[in-house]
Amino acid sequence: MKIAVDAMGGDNAPHDVVEGAVMAVRDHGMSIVLVGEEDKIQSEISRVNGRLGEPERGKLQQLEIHHASQIIGMGESPATAYKRKQDSSIVQAARLVGEKKAEAMVSAGNTGACMTAAFLKMGALEGVQRPAIALAAPHAQGFTTIIDVGANVDCKPIHLLQFAIMGDVYTELVLGINRPRVGLLNVGEEEGKGNELTQKTHELLRQTNLNFIGNIEGRDILRGNADVIVCDGFVGNIILKFGEGMAEVLTDVVRDIFSKSGYLRQLGGWLSRPVFRKLKWLFSPSRVGGAPLLGVDGTCIIGHGISSAQAISSAIQEAEKMVSLKVNEKIQERLNSLDLARGNSE
Amino acid sequence: MKIAVDAMGGDNAPHDVVEGAVMAVRDHGMSIVLVGEEDKIQSEISRVNGRLGEPERGKLQQLEIHHASQIIGMGESPATAYKRKQDSSIVQAARLVGEKKAEAMVSAGNTGACMTAAFLKMGALEGVQRPAIALAAPHAQGFTTIIDVGANVDCKPIHLLQFAIMGDVYTELVLGINRPRVGLLNVGEEEGKGNELTQKTHELLRQTNLNFIGNIEGRDILRGNADVIVCDGFVGNIILKFGEGMAEVLTDVVRDIFSKSGYLRQLGGWLSRPVFRKLKWLFSPSRVGGAPLLGVDGTCIIGHGISSAQAISSAIQEAEKMVSLKVNEKIQERLNSLDLARGNSE
Repeated sequence: MKIAVDAMGGDNAPHDVVEGAVMAVRDHGMSIVLVGEEDKIQSEISRVNGRLGEPERGKLQQLEIHHASQIIGMGESPATAYKRKQDSSIVQAARLVGEKKAEAMVSAGNTGACMTAAFLKMGALEGVQRPAIALAAPHAQGFTTIIDVGANVDCKPIHLLQFAIMGDVYTELVLGINRPRVGLLNVGEEEGKGNELTQKTHELLRQTNLNFIGNIEGRDILRGNADVIVCDGFVGNIILKFGEGMAEVLTDVVRDIFSKSGYLRQLGGWLSRPVFRKLKWLFSPSRVGGAPLLGVDGTCIIGHGISSAQAISSAIQEAEKMVSLKVNEKIQERLNSLDLARGNSE
Repeated sequence: MKIAVDAMGGDNAPHDVVEGAVMAVRDHGMSIVLVGEEDKIQSEISRVNGRLGEPERGKLQQLEIHHASQIIGMGESPATAYKRKQDSSIVQAARLVGEKKAEAMVSAGNTGACMTAAFLKMGALEGVQRPAIALAAPHAQGFTTIIDVGANVDCKPIHLLQFAIMGDVYTELVLGINRPRVGLLNVGEEEGKGNELTQKTHELLRQTNLNFIGNIEGRDILRGNADVIVCDGFVGNIILKFGEGMAEVLTDVVRDIFSKSGYLRQLGGWLSRPVFRKLKWLFSPSRVGGAPLLGVDGTCIIGHGISSAQAISSAIQEAEKMVSLKVNEKIQERLNSLDLARGNSE
């Protein structure tokens, strides 16, 4: 299995991305093709190998380079960038998967461009109206899949129903949760609550054979009260960024309070450091690595822009897992059995 | 000025509500009419006075009771409850304001019933299409008004525009922030980002004389990057509850980690207690007291269900402040000047 990695995407690219890819090859035996500017990638590989010591002879062959001359920046408009930058690392990585020269792609670059490229180069699974981004969000007891966290800002009930099915398959196979509890993110627990979209989606979800537990509220998200949380990409994206922002602000505030405290309290802070470290780890995005774009005919993992080498390596492993566990085949099967593949349930 | 307080609304009613009302009368010289079951209220007043000592003679007269025989429960459907329970404490409190027998109402009861009663008994300000709930959310440097946090789950651009204007007036007058920075909650900073609703609202907001700073993202909410955050009530409510849930989960997790730690770390936790206390205070909802329902022809403050006596007392003071500062008159003036009062800008 070969995985295409966008070497130029992310805030610390190509430095951290190449390092993460090398780690995945050396420590986990992955086969990787790094996509991007060849000489830059080559020099990063040399740097990493120099630091870690030359790898065994056989392992060198598991790391290829596919040259791509362009880079799509984080702030660029996805549609325009896709059109103008066909030789960018993101578009070329997606093309490799579309042409079956690689089984999966991983990118920590421009999320919108990544979605556009994956959708246009790989196509959608039969009957999928809208691919969606699933995020395995950490909570105190484990992980909850939130789908969609940003691919689709305007949704219809049929889209949310498909998100639920895709999220269910991902959670069962990749996160290993049996019969995941599927909840619909809403403003109240009772049936009948919500806006037009969630009211109609609720009706659709009740008719499936999903383990649908009904509406869940904002406060349930981090309590682990559902294994799959279904929402449109507008709400999901705001929740995701609010959560990230809250974690950052709390860290800043704690640091600020301690720094202005007396000696005893500073000692307390010093003694408590492992607690804060554990807290940070618990809610750390890098435990996950990346978020899959589900519903495309291929595997595409989107990493966070600030991905570390460790996070890139995790994302690559997740891509490998999704392919081996045949997530797409299972999604297709489930959609077919619901007769949604023909799109006649709207 | 007389303020009607729903004595029966809230998880700890009438106990904490009556105590909060008595505090507001004794410490802040408010005139209050407690609405609810007379004998229960009377016995709570006696209990509180017994504990605090009998009040001065003059102050007794500032606390009246208006008997209401029914109670609307927290889980009841607002529309049905409103119809069937016209003699409930919530509906009677709203009626007192509608009939100008009181200037404002405060309730920590069923939010939906409170909104319904306020809207139907007081009516809307001229031209206001949808009253909205504004929440002064605490952040590290102060407060940000989020509007709407739950009154309207399906909105049009004109509604969000009106929320922005109402939130602006509230923030300027009540929170005392000059020329508040108004941000539109969205999935990206750039103009053109977002769903249909936010794209069209963005255009409308640009044409006003508000201090409109454009789109803001989920991560900006707690950073204090805007003084007024405009969103529909579906998104606002989920954000609000997610934030509350996150604060609860963090507290639980910290307690759990410390309790399983060794002596040194427990000592650290003990020494750090004031830090955690400050952290909790910083993000505590009771610093605010209640959230006003803006746009109705009267003043209505909705308290959190778990309101303490202190929170009720704060909510009463906030109601008094809104009336004295003529928030409604100013909102009406601003809507008129924008020619929105005739509702012809849709």
